[in-house]
Amino acid sequence: MIRTLDLPVTLSTKAQELTLRRASDGDLTALMLLLADDPISATRGDRADDADAAAYRSALAEILADPANDLLVVVNEADEPLATMQLTRIPGMARRGSTRLLVEAVRVRSDHRASGIGSAMMRWVTGSAAPAVEASLVQLTSDEARQDAHRFYERLGFVGSHRGFKYRLG
Amino acid sequence: MIRTLDLPVTLSTKAQELTLRRASDGDLTALMLLLADDPISATRGDRADDADAAAYRSALAEILADPANDLLVVVNEADEPLATMQLTRIPGMARRGSTRLLVEAVRVRSDHRASGIGSAMMRWVTGSAAPAVEASLVQLTSDEARQDAHRFYERLGFVGSHRGFKYRLG
Repeated sequence: MIRTLDLPVTLSTKAQELTLRRASDGDLTALMLLLADDPISATRGDRADDADAAAYRSALAEILADPANDLLVVVNEADEPLATMQLTRIPGMARRGSTRLLVEAVRVRSDHRASGIGSAMMRWVTGSAAPAVEASLVQLTSDEARQDAHRFYERLGFVGSHRGFKYRLG
Repeated sequence: MIRTLDLPVTLSTKAQELTLRRASDGDLTALMLLLADDPISATRGDRADDADAAAYRSALAEILADPANDLLVVVNEADEPLATMQLTRIPGMARRGSTRLLVEAVRVRSDHRASGIGSAMMRWVTGSAAPAVEASLVQLTSDEARQDAHRFYERLGFVGSHRGFKYRLG
């Protein structure tokens, strides 16, 4: 967990008040469902299969134990996770020794998309999380197939200036 | 520094045998020159200006003190840095709890480009560094203006499946 993040925090959308908080082991099933609730992720192996629970649990524990990583969830009044994202703080040499904040695995539950949750999350990332970790750059990659997501990030002030390359092992 | 990386290591190109090793404070000036020796980086503030040395020194110290980050240099027989890159190990939930290895700030000195140094570095990343940190995915982003670099990564087996977004603060 990234200790300088001020959590939990209230995120307001037009429809409701939600809470952004750190994920915990009790969120594991909801997190697996969120990752699987997406056609692109499903093709990469995220299928909310019980047989994968140990791998996800181990990854979650590692993220939470790491001072440069955090896994967050947005929950409703019933404390049900509606969205998730991972943050990684990365010191760097480029751009005169700039620290970056990397956002990975942003997912919003399919029945809550286009409800303003994603915007509220990303505004918190750029407005609160990045300053809290002394980052001068927030970066993320989004699959080329996610054209709606690309327009979404551009509306929030992100610039799609780069190509993202992946090399899969084994 | 990432302790599981087996360094230093010999990198062979057609022309010469080079050494890939961890950077140290003594490489600071060479690293600043490498970052500035690139038209795109120069527009982002990397100008090898003495006034920025403290910021780069602090960033280098932070990277080397971080167990998930490492800064590497490729040196010739005279121990002169000809290239550099940063590696970051990132645990993650997506892709069934996959660990990723992020590559940032790859730079080869302009008078040594197209000499095979970059290929040798990236082959070491995918073939040795990724397994050493138990990563199943290597990822990086490259500015859309670097079309030659994109072809280079594709030849090495990277897939340019994503768009890379950046949000600059302040």
